[in-house]
Amino acid sequence: MIKLVAIDVDGTLTDKDRLISTRAIEFIRKAEKKGIIVSLLSGNVIPVVYALKVFIGINGPVFGENGGVMFDNDGSITKFFSNEKTNSFLDEMSKKTSMRSIFTNKWREASTGFDIDGKDVDYVKAEAEKRGLVVFYSGYSWHLMNKGEDKGFAVKILKEKYGLNYEEILVVGDSNNDMPMFELPVFKACPANATDNVKKASDFVSSYSYGEEIGEVFSHFNLL
Amino acid sequence: MIKLVAIDVDGTLTDKDRLISTRAIEFIRKAEKKGIIVSLLSGNVIPVVYALKVFIGINGPVFGENGGVMFDNDGSITKFFSNEKTNSFLDEMSKKTSMRSIFTNKWREASTGFDIDGKDVDYVKAEAEKRGLVVFYSGYSWHLMNKGEDKGFAVKILKEKYGLNYEEILVVGDSNNDMPMFELPVFKACPANATDNVKKASDFVSSYSYGEEIGEVFSHFNLL
Repeated sequence: MIKLVAIDVDGTLTDKDRLISTRAIEFIRKAEKKGIIVSLLSGNVIPVVYALKVFIGINGPVFGENGGVMFDNDGSITKFFSNEKTNSFLDEMSKKTSMRSIFTNKWREASTGFDIDGKDVDYVKAEAEKRGLVVFYSGYSWHLMNKGEDKGFAVKILKEKYGLNYEEILVVGDSNNDMPMFELPVFKACPANATDNVKKASDFVSSYSYGEEIGEVFSHFNLL
Repeated sequence: MIKLVAIDVDGTLTDKDRLISTRAIEFIRKAEKKGIIVSLLSGNVIPVVYALKVFIGINGPVFGENGGVMFDNDGSITKFFSNEKTNSFLDEMSKKTSMRSIFTNKWREASTGFDIDGKDVDYVKAEAEKRGLVVFYSGYSWHLMNKGEDKGFAVKILKEKYGLNYEEILVVGDSNNDMPMFELPVFKACPANATDNVKKASDFVSSYSYGEEIGEVFSHFNLL
């Protein structure tokens, strides 16, 4: 029986333009009333997931920076990784490539966001790897992370925190940065707009896209 | 004819527990489709109103810290006041009263949030006034602001930015920190849960409370 649902935000609770689905909000509130613990796992910064927690009314901890930082129910913020190495790498690369900082970095604590011209992506990825860093595109922005800092890590934190088995956890996501949680022996679901690898890894692929899948997914796993 | 609506967040778009009204989100999206400019004015910090702007899809600038800081459509953040004096005052007072910092201060740039025991409120208010600072309770948290830093100031910024007359602006709010915008010669509306002074200053008092008034207010002013 599913006791906890870990949900990605951009593209999974929102439409293509990042507008949140009001139906998704209503389904989350309904599942929580049935006793399900809900957590959000986003590439965004902590104050943004904090805002989503407060205004949607998420009853579990929320993770920013793809799992690198957690805002918990008691108001505490736990930083599992640092942005020291990722920020220095950005400084270094911005001198010789088109890699450049984005304004949300001022609120980032455990990773670095950036913009980049397509021509420089392969070079920057290779250089990052040499330094034990990971580069990926979430479908909404570019992220530079520490190795091991991903949403799979965050799901393990949730599992320990609530003393759950993997089969009591459902993850919902749509893109490559969600894959680390799809590789765990949890239940997995995705919207119709998910990338092929996410779809392939999923136990249930919704017929609905972009935030509108939440009702069907929750209903499939008997959470409503 | 109303061209711009400036809306408070807590208690005006949300319920008592700060859960956002999904119907309010739908009405805001509908008004924007009709060409109305919408702005949010909150006591909360900039990354929180940034998140609301992104996920609700607000088409105008949004203000945090009761008008002290603006996040604009081009991604720029403008700080109209500083938190230098407000932070020093908190430091000083926390040594001799129960006044204490709150965790969102790490994202605050132009004011200071705090908690305090009721017995110390009057003393702290009087000391703040001596230093040209203003203390008030928003209904959700305590704020220490610079004189002149309020939502009325923010509405004037919006008026200038869009070259509007006051009678082309509608403000919606529910509590004392909204009063500075209710004192301007704009149109004013409030939910049924508004404080008495806000109700008295309003052109239209909705029969609905806590976020559920938005549809009736927008319909009254012909914005839908």
